[in-house]
Amino acid sequence: MALIVKKFGGTSVKDAERIKHVAKIITDDYKKGNDVVVIVSAQGDTTDDLIDKAAELSQDPSAREMDMLLSAGEQISCSLLAIAISQMGYNAVSLLGWQAGFKTDSNYGSARIKKLEAERVKAELSKNNIVVIAGFQGINKYDDITTLGRGGSDTSAVAVAAVLKADLCQIYTDVDGVYTADPRKVKNAKKIKEIAYSEMLELATLGAQVLNNRSVEMASKYGVELEVLSSIEDKPGTIVKEKVNMEKILVRGVACDKNVARFSIIGLQDTPGIAFKVFNELAKQKVNVDIILQSVGRDGTKDISFTVPKDQEKTARKAIEELKGHLQFKTFETDDSVAKLSIVGAGMETHHGVAAKMFEALYDANINIQMISTSEIRVSVLIALSDTDRAFNAVHDAFFEK
Amino acid sequence: MALIVKKFGGTSVKDAERIKHVAKIITDDYKKGNDVVVIVSAQGDTTDDLIDKAAELSQDPSAREMDMLLSAGEQISCSLLAIAISQMGYNAVSLLGWQAGFKTDSNYGSARIKKLEAERVKAELSKNNIVVIAGFQGINKYDDITTLGRGGSDTSAVAVAAVLKADLCQIYTDVDGVYTADPRKVKNAKKIKEIAYSEMLELATLGAQVLNNRSVEMASKYGVELEVLSSIEDKPGTIVKEKVNMEKILVRGVACDKNVARFSIIGLQDTPGIAFKVFNELAKQKVNVDIILQSVGRDGTKDISFTVPKDQEKTARKAIEELKGHLQFKTFETDDSVAKLSIVGAGMETHHGVAAKMFEALYDANINIQMISTSEIRVSVLIALSDTDRAFNAVHDAFFEK
Repeated sequence: MALIVKKFGGTSVKDAERIKHVAKIITDDYKKGNDVVVIVSAQGDTTDDLIDKAAELSQDPSAREMDMLLSAGEQISCSLLAIAISQMGYNAVSLLGWQAGFKTDSNYGSARIKKLEAERVKAELSKNNIVVIAGFQGINKYDDITTLGRGGSDTSAVAVAAVLKADLCQIYTDVDGVYTADPRKVKNAKKIKEIAYSEMLELATLGAQVLNNRSVEMASKYGVELEVLSSIEDKPGTIVKEKVNMEKILVRGVACDKNVARFSIIGLQDTPGIAFKVFNELAKQKVNVDIILQSVGRDGTKDISFTVPKDQEKTARKAIEELKGHLQFKTFETDDSVAKLSIVGAGMETHHGVAAKMFEALYDANINIQMISTSEIRVSVLIALSDTDRAFNAVHDAFFEK
Repeated sequence: MALIVKKFGGTSVKDAERIKHVAKIITDDYKKGNDVVVIVSAQGDTTDDLIDKAAELSQDPSAREMDMLLSAGEQISCSLLAIAISQMGYNAVSLLGWQAGFKTDSNYGSARIKKLEAERVKAELSKNNIVVIAGFQGINKYDDITTLGRGGSDTSAVAVAAVLKADLCQIYTDVDGVYTADPRKVKNAKKIKEIAYSEMLELATLGAQVLNNRSVEMASKYGVELEVLSSIEDKPGTIVKEKVNMEKILVRGVACDKNVARFSIIGLQDTPGIAFKVFNELAKQKVNVDIILQSVGRDGTKDISFTVPKDQEKTARKAIEELKGHLQFKTFETDDSVAKLSIVGAGMETHHGVAAKMFEALYDANINIQMISTSEIRVSVLIALSDTDRAFNAVHDAFFEK
């Protein structure tokens, strides 16, 4: 007799067969006496197809109209799923984002949930309905439809779970849990049974791509227990929660991010305020700067290197070129043949030598480290893109049994 | 400087090219200083595709969920059209049925508009926006999405035109106006310049299929002047209004409806209340009975014949079979190889001999009349389906020059 929120991604509902299978997963839990709220993404390629339709009409469609357009995708999938559940003999009702009470800001395309007024959802639950909510969407104060950005359905699910104080929020995907590394890349990768929010957050950020980052932040903030599991195979997934059993596990996982480009600005004046001016300009252009490395000044000049997501390389390049007018520097170079490899583990906070062990593994594999960045629970290194697979396996095997 | 409402059907916006063309039609009028409100249907086959998706999941999906599903079609087309208009350099905003203020009853699948609260539409117009509204849809008092039924976008358009007191409501279709008969069937068919609401109503009902019936009723009630015109060719269409030039025109058009099945109940008791019992049962089963013919009683029994739409034949048959328990009758027969041919014209009210001229034309063509039904401005006959094309041409040519 629990309240369970279940979120299904686009692959899980891509066709009639998959929808029927998802309906079975849902009703199996409902039959046991649980209340079930479902969040669903748009079917398979629907979102991409809609984006293509808009692209045929405009190079630069308005964000408001794109949200109007794309939100139709979840509208289709949520009604289809409700129909499939009803066909199995259970009461189901589909709700759009605005009907479910998702109030967002007006940041079309990547809106943030400001409030979730879940009265309607509660009322439908009290009528013993299985509630199927269109993920990824809400409305702003003008009553216009907004979307939460790609992967936003995870956030929708966590928000509903938080407001309804659900016992569990299950995120069904096409993998069966969170692994110590990407199983397609690292042959010895192992499924993680439990992982802390903070660790999951670093892994999501670092390209593990299992859970949307904002949804993990929100889960952590409201203490929503998450489970990442497969919508195809019926077996336990990975639990994400506040406190996990630390034992002697120092490193929870290894992640690799290839969506990285490195910038180096060479020969900047070694005076105060230079770094501020560089990163302020990048922030104004909405470039997400990740690792930053500043050389010690020499001969009155210094170098600054940093990484940005590959798809922001053009914007960052333009920003730096514009800076050339105000700031004196010799030259700048960019390199997008790089990757970021990271180890994550809450245990690092209290243990020394973890970074050293990583560097040793890379040294043994004869891999050059270009940049290093660390946080309390993470060590990241920038390496050549061509070294990625070897580095990934070497680091993973250093921390996990083969 | 007028306010013009324009409605575009699914064929008119079926792909990017068509959408761009429609955007041009809209902005051409906007450029002249007019306020323009657009109602748009779902693209081409979208509605049918969505129905197919539901059919894969359920034989009998709930009407509420079907409305949720199908309304996504207009959501896609209205945002795409707004994007196309913006791309041409004009301000456009898309609105869903509920955003545009369409309040309906809860008759999912064929809801009626109860109220149109057009404040948002007016506000957008005052901001010089071209307003693109998703046709066919609204919300009920539970904040659930409803649809107005197939062809409901015409009704949406007329409702907006009525509430905004628009100067003209243009219904763009894939034909360029209303004809004296279906041009695909009758080679001498001519385009009608002006037609009265009452005549259009009879023609719509009788299968001319140019304008949705309810939309004509509503236009008549609120005095909204309609124009039916082509979304492809730029030429005047047919104006539908209250008073039209009667001249010596007795018959405005000839229409043919093949969606007809005839029922005959033979040997009913010739006592009072029999007809009531028959048609009350059919009404309870929501069967739309059209022509009714009751024979004069003889030997204490009488026969009743009537027609129903072909797609209600099964329901009607069941109703009659159930009646057999309560009512005594010998047998009943059905025939769906029939068609209804009608002439329509407001001039008939004051002129005699119109029906006789129709019967003469049919007699000359050696076509047998199975049933006859008349109203003030209409004469309909039931004929064999195989005679349809010959009859259609013969009757048309009797009233219109070749």
